[in-house]
Amino acid sequence: MSRADRVSDRVVALELDLLLVSSLVNVRYLTGFTGSSGLALVGPERRVFLTDFRYVEQAEAEVRDFDRERFPQQPFTHLAALLGPGALRLGFEDSVLTVAEHRRLREALPEAVELVPAGTPVEAERAVKEPGELERIRAASALADDVYRLQAQRGLVGRTEREVALDLEGEMRRRGAEPSFPSIVASGAHGALPHAEPRDVAIAAGTLVTLDIGARLDGYCSDCTRTWATGPLGTEETELYELVLRAQEAALAAVRPGPSGRDVDAVAREIIAAAGHGEHFGHGTGHGVGLEVHEGPRLGFTEQSDALLVAGHVVTIEPGVYLPGRTGARIEDLVFVTDDGHEVVSGFPKTLTTVG
Amino acid sequence: MSRADRVSDRVVALELDLLLVSSLVNVRYLTGFTGSSGLALVGPERRVFLTDFRYVEQAEAEVRDFDRERFPQQPFTHLAALLGPGALRLGFEDSVLTVAEHRRLREALPEAVELVPAGTPVEAERAVKEPGELERIRAASALADDVYRLQAQRGLVGRTEREVALDLEGEMRRRGAEPSFPSIVASGAHGALPHAEPRDVAIAAGTLVTLDIGARLDGYCSDCTRTWATGPLGTEETELYELVLRAQEAALAAVRPGPSGRDVDAVAREIIAAAGHGEHFGHGTGHGVGLEVHEGPRLGFTEQSDALLVAGHVVTIEPGVYLPGRTGARIEDLVFVTDDGHEVVSGFPKTLTTVG
Repeated sequence: MSRADRVSDRVVALELDLLLVSSLVNVRYLTGFTGSSGLALVGPERRVFLTDFRYVEQAEAEVRDFDRERFPQQPFTHLAALLGPGALRLGFEDSVLTVAEHRRLREALPEAVELVPAGTPVEAERAVKEPGELERIRAASALADDVYRLQAQRGLVGRTEREVALDLEGEMRRRGAEPSFPSIVASGAHGALPHAEPRDVAIAAGTLVTLDIGARLDGYCSDCTRTWATGPLGTEETELYELVLRAQEAALAAVRPGPSGRDVDAVAREIIAAAGHGEHFGHGTGHGVGLEVHEGPRLGFTEQSDALLVAGHVVTIEPGVYLPGRTGARIEDLVFVTDDGHEVVSGFPKTLTTVG
Repeated sequence: MSRADRVSDRVVALELDLLLVSSLVNVRYLTGFTGSSGLALVGPERRVFLTDFRYVEQAEAEVRDFDRERFPQQPFTHLAALLGPGALRLGFEDSVLTVAEHRRLREALPEAVELVPAGTPVEAERAVKEPGELERIRAASALADDVYRLQAQRGLVGRTEREVALDLEGEMRRRGAEPSFPSIVASGAHGALPHAEPRDVAIAAGTLVTLDIGARLDGYCSDCTRTWATGPLGTEETELYELVLRAQEAALAAVRPGPSGRDVDAVAREIIAAAGHGEHFGHGTGHGVGLEVHEGPRLGFTEQSDALLVAGHVVTIEPGVYLPGRTGARIEDLVFVTDDGHEVVSGFPKTLTTVG
């Protein structure tokens, strides 16, 4: 079954005639189109891709198995003409379409078309990867591993965080990839900021440095965090690293089909809380990775992470502990959920690595 | 008057008590916050910035003149608590908030809070730049000019489009900037694709190559397109270049306070149409540039470009002609609208430049 067929099954289950796909990454997933302006209609009987004049040639090359339509100026007007005046239940991606777009769409469509919020049926399909997708993610992850290995050789002390971040990203680009998100290089007290921006500050010896990078290769993302030491550490930092590693490995061991994302999160969270750092781990334990670096499923501590893990999920396991004004550590692996457990895809070692 | 004061005046004019700002770039414009999770409330009496635990330290360093609030998990629940149970007209950015976010916001707020679509009041302020913003845009543009000059020395023939694009972007990064959009390097028949992606294809001699790059420096963007020759051209390509240059310079001459974006577009469009290429110029003549590489005002051929140009606008002038399967050319300058006319900020020459 094709991706469009599987999504179409969901469209039918939602008692819809058609789904309007307006998320560009979802359009790419379904049609293969990689440009920056396109819509798709998916249902049991119709598969239509719409773009504007700038992408007509690109769509001819990329889009298979969908009828191709070019809209002149207003996509929704063209859509209305395509749908015709008959009664129809048209689903839309309510977490993508803005309130203003929804109003324009409503105004463009005939009365007989009922607009129904459809949730995230394409994201639900995307969360479970096909073998070809797993291979692409594996390749992106291997590329990021290479970049880490090279950086460990080049050293950290005396270079600025920004220099190291640019070097990491430059090496990804030299290998044909691009960063899947802005790289994090956070040393010393800056390690207490989970989303620190690299500074023009030289990295000191004898501290922790959190590096968080991802590569996007052939559309698919990787995501991997390592925290390195730049020389002998104090007791607080050594213990912090060992705690995070213990929590990370325990959560990792819980990854298999069956438990929910929340269950896996709880494993890491309990270990960190038992060590007295519950309030220093404010983010979720992980998230899905694919065409986007953050996608389903979630592994957090709210009901949004209640979905169960299944084979084909690709997730990160990345607990962290952040001590404001002092230091921080996070360790993150990219993991495939397999039929009988999991496979860790990230290859760089997690034993405390000293990079001078 | 501060930015927040000016937006607050618009909030009052819209008969609102408060505006909920959820666009991150608008939040940055108003509060100075550069992280990736934040909301702002703006009105005559209240200025509140909300973020999650990850950005508390960053917000302390960046956000002035706003009360700072940390939301635990659900920002809208925290917002509801902040607003209290009283009657209130709360505007929201309807071209930013998704249908699902709007639903969650509605559910979180007390009945007495009326949610009102507020359009784009912050974008309206952003379109008119302050002197400090103009200086940042000028610096980003000068940096991109340097990168063009270097590339003209390095040559094009025999290098792949992708190599050249990576080199352009690498040089931006070396100078402390980043690309404000994915660079375009389109040679030969690929020049007929306005948004071509750089290919692993060597650039030939004796053809046109369209290069479209922008730098983002200190938050602000530049945008500049040049079409170079890689050696002696055929008649069709030479005439095409001269036509686009004539249209570009005529539209440029029309830039001053007074005409609408549509008026300026019409100048370029009429020249290209008179040469028989009306259907080969499918995009607008330009757009505003600032914190985003595409912002207001628009210079196109629909009613969306009816707003009048005023001093402080920063726009591109970028007509192009695209001959499918054959060739294409686009020339784009970044321009400040001044009290008595305009100032062209892009510095690289527009006479046909041959880069072998």
